[in-house]
Amino acid sequence: MGIKFKVGIIGAGRIGKVHTQSITSYVPEAEIKTIADPFLNDDMKTWAESLGISNVVKDYKEILNDQEIDAVLICSSTDTHAQIIQESAKAGKHIFCEKPVDLDVLRIKETLKIVEESGVKFQVGFQRRFDKNHRRVKDVVEQGEIGEPQVVKITSRDPAPPPVEYIKVSGGIYLDCMIHDFDMARYLSGSEVDEVFAQGSCLIDPEIGIAGDVDTAAVLLKFTNGAIGLIDNSRQAVYGHDQRVEVFGSKGCVRDDNVSDTNAIVSVTEGVISEKPLYFFLERYMGAYVSEIKEFFDAVANDTEVPCGGTDALVSVMIGVAATESFKTGKMVKVERL
Amino acid sequence: MGIKFKVGIIGAGRIGKVHTQSITSYVPEAEIKTIADPFLNDDMKTWAESLGISNVVKDYKEILNDQEIDAVLICSSTDTHAQIIQESAKAGKHIFCEKPVDLDVLRIKETLKIVEESGVKFQVGFQRRFDKNHRRVKDVVEQGEIGEPQVVKITSRDPAPPPVEYIKVSGGIYLDCMIHDFDMARYLSGSEVDEVFAQGSCLIDPEIGIAGDVDTAAVLLKFTNGAIGLIDNSRQAVYGHDQRVEVFGSKGCVRDDNVSDTNAIVSVTEGVISEKPLYFFLERYMGAYVSEIKEFFDAVANDTEVPCGGTDALVSVMIGVAATESFKTGKMVKVERL
Amino acid sequence: MGIKFKVGIIGAGRIGKVHTQSITSYVPEAEIKTIADPFLNDDMKTWAESLGISNVVKDYKEILNDQEIDAVLICSSTDTHAQIIQESAKAGKHIFCEKPVDLDVLRIKETLKIVEESGVKFQVGFQRRFDKNHRRVKDVVEQGEIGEPQVVKITSRDPAPPPVEYIKVSGGIYLDCMIHDFDMARYLSGSEVDEVFAQGSCLIDPEIGIAGDVDTAAVLLKFTNGAIGLIDNSRQAVYGHDQRVEVFGSKGCVRDDNVSDTNAIVSVTEGVISEKPLYFFLERYMGAYVSEIKEFFDAVANDTEVPCGGTDALVSVMIGVAATESFKTGKMVKVERL
Amino acid sequence: MGIKFKVGIIGAGRIGKVHTQSITSYVPEAEIKTIADPFLNDDMKTWAESLGISNVVKDYKEILNDQEIDAVLICSSTDTHAQIIQESAKAGKHIFCEKPVDLDVLRIKETLKIVEESGVKFQVGFQRRFDKNHRRVKDVVEQGEIGEPQVVKITSRDPAPPPVEYIKVSGGIYLDCMIHDFDMARYLSGSEVDEVFAQGSCLIDPEIGIAGDVDTAAVLLKFTNGAIGLIDNSRQAVYGHDQRVEVFGSKGCVRDDNVSDTNAIVSVTEGVISEKPLYFFLERYMGAYVSEIKEFFDAVANDTEVPCGGTDALVSVMIGVAATESFKTGKMVKVERL
Repeated sequence: MGIKFKVGIIGAGRIGKVHTQSITSYVPEAEIKTIADPFLNDDMKTWAESLGISNVVKDYKEILNDQEIDAVLICSSTDTHAQIIQESAKAGKHIFCEKPVDLDVLRIKETLKIVEESGVKFQVGFQRRFDKNHRRVKDVVEQGEIGEPQVVKITSRDPAPPPVEYIKVSGGIYLDCMIHDFDMARYLSGSEVDEVFAQGSCLIDPEIGIAGDVDTAAVLLKFTNGAIGLIDNSRQAVYGHDQRVEVFGSKGCVRDDNVSDTNAIVSVTEGVISEKPLYFFLERYMGAYVSEIKEFFDAVANDTEVPCGGTDALVSVMIGVAATESFKTGKMVKVERL
Repeated sequence: MGIKFKVGIIGAGRIGKVHTQSITSYVPEAEIKTIADPFLNDDMKTWAESLGISNVVKDYKEILNDQEIDAVLICSSTDTHAQIIQESAKAGKHIFCEKPVDLDVLRIKETLKIVEESGVKFQVGFQRRFDKNHRRVKDVVEQGEIGEPQVVKITSRDPAPPPVEYIKVSGGIYLDCMIHDFDMARYLSGSEVDEVFAQGSCLIDPEIGIAGDVDTAAVLLKFTNGAIGLIDNSRQAVYGHDQRVEVFGSKGCVRDDNVSDTNAIVSVTEGVISEKPLYFFLERYMGAYVSEIKEFFDAVANDTEVPCGGTDALVSVMIGVAATESFKTGKMVKVERL
Repeated sequence: MGIKFKVGIIGAGRIGKVHTQSITSYVPEAEIKTIADPFLNDDMKTWAESLGISNVVKDYKEILNDQEIDAVLICSSTDTHAQIIQESAKAGKHIFCEKPVDLDVLRIKETLKIVEESGVKFQVGFQRRFDKNHRRVKDVVEQGEIGEPQVVKITSRDPAPPPVEYIKVSGGIYLDCMIHDFDMARYLSGSEVDEVFAQGSCLIDPEIGIAGDVDTAAVLLKFTNGAIGLIDNSRQAVYGHDQRVEVFGSKGCVRDDNVSDTNAIVSVTEGVISEKPLYFFLERYMGAYVSEIKEFFDAVANDTEVPCGGTDALVSVMIGVAATESFKTGKMVKVERL
Repeated sequence: MGIKFKVGIIGAGRIGKVHTQSITSYVPEAEIKTIADPFLNDDMKTWAESLGISNVVKDYKEILNDQEIDAVLICSSTDTHAQIIQESAKAGKHIFCEKPVDLDVLRIKETLKIVEESGVKFQVGFQRRFDKNHRRVKDVVEQGEIGEPQVVKITSRDPAPPPVEYIKVSGGIYLDCMIHDFDMARYLSGSEVDEVFAQGSCLIDPEIGIAGDVDTAAVLLKFTNGAIGLIDNSRQAVYGHDQRVEVFGSKGCVRDDNVSDTNAIVSVTEGVISEKPLYFFLERYMGAYVSEIKEFFDAVANDTEVPCGGTDALVSVMIGVAATESFKTGKMVKVERL
């Protein structure tokens, strides 16, 4: 089980660092050869060296031009994803890219076409699919334990809103946040979304409203098999990252619950108190971030299908676009057929 | 604390029997003088006698004409409600009536006008408001513990569908089942519903579809204060009566869970197994049925406001009518303003 | 289902009132004819009248001498139990008596002998056996779901200590409190206790120590079938009445949990908070108090075995005596063989 | 943060492999230079190479004689612990040793004396102290949230018994299994054990009884501060590794629960089913195994006190010896004073 792959990391921000650490600790068959980041600084170099990575550059093209490198992880800003995916595919590198590929459906389709022609593996970073609890729910559904899915419910609330500056360029809550839940809805139900109706309000921070977005949102989905989906999002759950899913079917119901650091329970005069859900998404989904990277390299190593690919990247954005349109028009919107 | 009120029961079917028993066991200040039921038979007489009630008649007008009787409980079939309410009000009897008053908004308004003119107390039987768990959720919201409500979620699934013959005359799932949840949404949020969008599918029994109804339904609500509501209904949750509510707000979230007979947990090789939710609605809400009757007589005795009155009876039907229209048209519908 | 039995209540203190109410509300086949209490006062008369009972006397012998009365409930102070049981048995009345019969084993045996000779039904008030949750645990054990019982664990903590004056005459914690748990241990395991070792400390109130008792106690039991029991008691659990049982066996484990008024859960910045256990034992075990009375009258009506009889009354005291001796000597003590 | 320590692993069985992996993945400041195992074979070499460790030898003295090596992890069989600890201390190596140091109290004392004279760090492998849930319980106690500890309860059941051959040389259940719980009792209560009374039965496998041991055991502890401890052990909980602790005090109670792989709940006609506890102790305590190793190297690096040292190693065995004597004699036994 010596080193099989040489890897390049493109973008060493928060999530790039997470993936770098995952590969170093948990993917013995992969070795990070180069890290590229346009904002390269000394801290980044020190951090890379502590992990035994000495090759840190500014320009990601050094990675693409390196014949030794087999795979890239694209962790740069969203607006660069499509371009770098296209270039990486043309350079013959297997690609793991953070979500979303792009906010524009046509641009995604064009990008996926190039990926497909190139024959490289392409995985998109919907990490929630790799969370143990959500995956167990999926397994229960898939094994038929609850029969035919009829209702899918997803609660997804962030602990605190991002800066308004970020919200302005985020594409709006349906494309920035709920896109994860659209992917989860497809994943859990095993069915495609046919119709979307969206509601939204600005109840947390008026600045978000001024920026043209809402901070509290919900959608009603109809799947092609007749099942119904309900999703609600909030930019601010003061008690932590609130992430619960439920699938109801003809033979039963399966749901998971939030994840806390410990399960200790304190009974005192104030009540019976358990711990709050983990607050930060990196903490909440740390195990999932590791798993998605391991499974990407498994798929590359064994030339099998990636667990979350181009279609998933595209369709979730299509649903997000439909939801955004529904919210703006107050009308139910059909999701464009592939 | 001698007997203060003499009571007439109109309709001695399933729910009439429940209320009769509640008064006998838990409302010492009330005495049932007469029970009227058009389908009067010997079993009914025997049952009444076992509770010490000997006056059992066919025609409810005997009750209305009895000057001694102070209050009536209308537990007859839905299509008779409006008529009997009107007559009872005119006869000066305080009225407790099972939901709904009628399925026609104008007819309800006309009925409520007569009630109002008569000055009698009028309470409608939305028993779920009186459930300990739901009420505790309401109290937490009202005490401001979770701040301003932003999202209300209600899961409401029956254990098994009624006969298709019943469904044909039920008014449809939004007016027959979800009307309880519309009332609950108003109760929990303390806000009125402004907009409704409904989805529905027939996934359980094709006969229900042939009868023109759906068996799986969900709505998205927008409240006048901007909060968003999500409700889902099913005619068949094989594991029991699934009744959960959740209110999310600016300072936290409160939710309740299903009610089981016991809290024993069995850990065996098959898993860690707890009891299913109570199956039958009379069992699940027995405490609530008792409380609503006690509080009705409290309101009559002390001449205070009933906990669930004419407006509640009317508005829930108005939302149900709007939801039905939304489902039929595929469009979002505004709830008619009072 | 007319009235079958006429009943006399002997002692109308707290628990006497509870049983009186239970019979009035839930046992239609029984009618309370007379209440006797040496501390008879006007409040007691008013209370009795509100339940439709007009015959309230000072001397319980009026009850015993009343040929019409079929059964008595002995709710007087502990030191009078044995005497009144003996007299009642001789008078041919069926007997329900609060625990314990007496604190002296010989006196109990003598009393039970007279009861046996008389042929009346005799039930002792170990109400916890009738609690839904504990009974479900028992049922799971009895149905063999967890195999052969190997370990029985009982947590039993009162919310607050009684007055020290009470403690002085209580017989000590092992006979006053833990006697309930000894009965529960026998009930759940279906086996007899062979050996007891007791520990105890005075950690809550030094006055309790001065009175010669402990306020924190635990025992280790060995059952005749080899199973092991662990019980811990405290006079003060500030968060409420803490009552949990667990049986571990060759095929699994069953346990129950505390009972709260509602199951609502509040997630706020302070934590995820559920309700405390019910505080007061009458509240916690209200359902059990009703059930034990109903089942007593069922046994009388159908001439079947009472669910909790003389042997149970005797053996629990024998274990309590053994535990008290173990605590005093620091040695393991064998429970006297019957 | 370059490499600071060179480490030797003595014994590459199951637990030696776990620690080796932990250091490789999570302790960047430590580098394993040499692994010694008398049963050295090709599989072991291949495994070591996969982790980048090429120096694998039979004789642990090669490690002790290597001047470059700073610290050793002793993961060999129990009967070799004391000897290797003594030699390692004399060679000036910091020592992490699996529990127990020895089953003989005098031998442990002699060994600890040599360790103390040498001035090296010495940590013993009571990994349960490092479990997140148990540690949270400890923190709640230490922060005074539940007031003064009065009762400590520990449930500790293995999923399946070890081979009888192992049991014969294990020292018996009180020294082999319950020693972990004795350490946990001291850790949670912050108090020393004064008295022990033990019960035990052979209920699972008669072969264990023939080997002179029991498979079901419980003790009652009295702490020097008057608090009481209850521990129960079983060699076979068919539903998985059952590990729960509880501390009850003057202001409340804190307890943790078992750990499952996921928190998904399936509601079906059979019941409401959650996952069983993790089965295998390595899985259950994996996080704890990593933490204890990280904290050992932290203590070495910063020259601070180890979190679990010589006294802990000694006292837990002393309690185990007392419990064993109590079980054999049927008498309460005082734990020898240090």
